Amino acid sequence: MFNKISIFGVGLIGGSFALALKKAGAVRQVVGVGRSASSLARAKELGIVDIASHSVEEAVHGADLILIAAPVAQTEAILASIEPHLQPGTVVTDAGSTKSDVVEAARKALGGKVAQFVPGHPIAGREQNGPDAAIVDLYVGKKTVLTRLPENTERDVGLVAQAWALCGAIIHRLTPEEHDRVFAAVSHLPHLLAYALVDDVARKPHADVLFQYAASGFRDFTRIAGSSPEMWRDISLANQIALLGELDAYMAQLAQLRELLAERNGKAIEAVYANAQRARQNWIRTIEAAEQQNKQGGD
Amino acid sequence: MFNKISIFGVGLIGGSFALALKKAGAVRQVVGVGRSASSLARAKELGIVDIASHSVEEAVHGADLILIAAPVAQTEAILASIEPHLQPGTVVTDAGSTKSDVVEAARKALGGKVAQFVPGHPIAGREQNGPDAAIVDLYVGKKTVLTRLPENTERDVGLVAQAWALCGAIIHRLTPEEHDRVFAAVSHLPHLLAYALVDDVARKPHADVLFQYAASGFRDFTRIAGSSPEMWRDISLANQIALLGELDAYMAQLAQLRELLAERNGKAIEAVYANAQRARQNWIRTIEAAEQQNKQGGD
Repeated sequence: MFNKISIFGVGLIGGSFALALKKAGAVRQVVGVGRSASSLARAKELGIVDIASHSVEEAVHGADLILIAAPVAQTEAILASIEPHLQPGTVVTDAGSTKSDVVEAARKALGGKVAQFVPGHPIAGREQNGPDAAIVDLYVGKKTVLTRLPENTERDVGLVAQAWALCGAIIHRLTPEEHDRVFAAVSHLPHLLAYALVDDVARKPHADVLFQYAASGFRDFTRIAGSSPEMWRDISLANQIALLGELDAYMAQLAQLRELLAERNGKAIEAVYANAQRARQNWIRTIEAAEQQNKQGGD
Repeated sequence: MFNKISIFGVGLIGGSFALALKKAGAVRQVVGVGRSASSLARAKELGIVDIASHSVEEAVHGADLILIAAPVAQTEAILASIEPHLQPGTVVTDAGSTKSDVVEAARKALGGKVAQFVPGHPIAGREQNGPDAAIVDLYVGKKTVLTRLPENTERDVGLVAQAWALCGAIIHRLTPEEHDRVFAAVSHLPHLLAYALVDDVARKPHADVLFQYAASGFRDFTRIAGSSPEMWRDISLANQIALLGELDAYMAQLAQLRELLAERNGKAIEAVYANAQRARQNWIRTIEAAEQQNKQGGD
C-alpha cells in the first residue's frame, strides 16, 4: 500500500498509472503536478488525482513514489526541481521512452541523490494524449522495462516493480544502453519511417488522389504517424545515436532491394519478402502463445 | 442476372467475388478453374463454385463473364489459354493489383479480341489466401478501379461495373498508367518497406531480443509484411518503373531526415512529423465521413 504517490504529467501515461493503482486499492492519495493548469484540473475532475498541486515542494514532501510521465526532454528540469525537496525514503521513477539520456539527466539533476531514481519504461500507448485518454487497463499484460542504476537498492527497484505489477504490467530488466538499442530498432525507427512516408505522400502534387486510394494496408502502416510530433521529436533526439545506426542499416537494406528491383531479380526479392513473412508469422505466434498464457495465469 | 460466370483462381479474391454474387442472387452458375486441384475441390466443398473445371474450353464456353483472379504474373498465360475459345458476347476482366502490365499482356494474348477485356482492380484484401479465406462481404464499401481500354464498349465496361457493384463495391475509373502510379505510392511501396524492415530486424544477431520488445506499433506497421511473398514479388516486378520512382523519392526523404537528425535539428524534424500527423488526421476524417455516408446511403 502506497500512502502518497505524486505524478508529474497527468496525461495518458501518468493518468493510466494512477487509475490502475487506485483500482487496485494500492494508494491512499495521488497528487498531480503539471505544466498545464487545465490538464491538472481535468485530471482532478476525472478522479485521476486527488490533489492538483502547483507546488513541487508540496508534491514531493512525504511521497513514497514519484512518477515522471512528462515528455522526455523535460525530465532533467523536473528532476532538478524535485531534488531540493527530495527526502530519504522517497523513490523517483520515470516513464520515458529512452533511457540513456534520462540516466544522464538524472545524474546531473539529482547528484548525490541519484540512488533514489529507478529509470523505467512502460511499453504501452495509444495515439490519444492528455488526461481524457487515460484508461485503467492500459498496462494490463504489457511489459514495463526497468533499467536500474548500479546505485539503486533492491528495495527501491522492488518498490517500482511492485507499482507497475499492480497496474498489471510484466516487469523486464535491461541496461539503459540495451534498452535504447532495442527500441531504436522496433519502435523509434518505425515511427520515423511512417512519418516520412506520410509527409512524402502529402507533399506530392497529386496527394489528394493518392489519399483517395490509400486503403487499410496504408492505414495500419501509418497508424503510428498519428502520434504526437513533439513527443517523437524528443525521442528521436534523445536516442539519436542508436536511431541513426538503425536508420543507416535500413537505408542500406533499401538500397540493396532497389538494386534487386532495378535488375528484376525476382528470386532475390521473393527471398527477402519470404524471410520477412516467416519471421513475422513466428513472432505473431509467440505473442499469441504468451497472451494465451497470461490469460490462463489470470484465471 | 448472369447465367454463367467463370473464375480463374478461386482463392480469396475470386472466391469472395463468387460468394458475393451468389448471395446477391445474381448468378445461375459459377465455374472455377485453377492450378491447384485441391484448392478447386475445396472451393466446390465450400459452395464457392458450382463446377470445378479442369477444361479451359468448358469454362469459357457460354460464359457471360470471366474473372481472372490469379497472381498477376500468370495473367498472360491464362488469357492465351482462353483466347481460342473466347466467343463474342463474353466479357473478360481481371483483379490484378497492377494494370499497365496486364493491358500489355492482354494485347499480346488476345490480339483482335482485346476489346472484350476490361481490366479491373478491387481494392480489398486480407493476409490469408486460398478458398478458405474467401468471405461474402470482402468488397462491401470498398473501391474497385476499372482501367478501361479505348477498344472496350460501354456495354462491356458496364457489365463488369455491375458485377462489382453487386458485390457492394464502389466503382472508380482511372487510366492504367494513373492506376499504377497511385498504387505504387500508397500500396506497393509500403509493402516493400514493411518487408524490408522485418527482414532487416530478423537478420540481426539479437533478433530474438528485438522481437521480444516489439509492440503494437511494430505489429501494425508490419502487418502487410504478412502478405504472400510470391504475389508481392510479382506486383513489385509488374509495376517496377513506378515503384522505383516512389522508392527513390522515399529514399531521398529518408536521407534528408537522416541529415536533420545528425545535426539535431529538432525544429525541422518536428515539422516533418507534424505535417505527416496533420495529413493523416485529415485523411482519416475523410475516410470516416465517407463511411458514414455509405452507411446512411445503404439504409
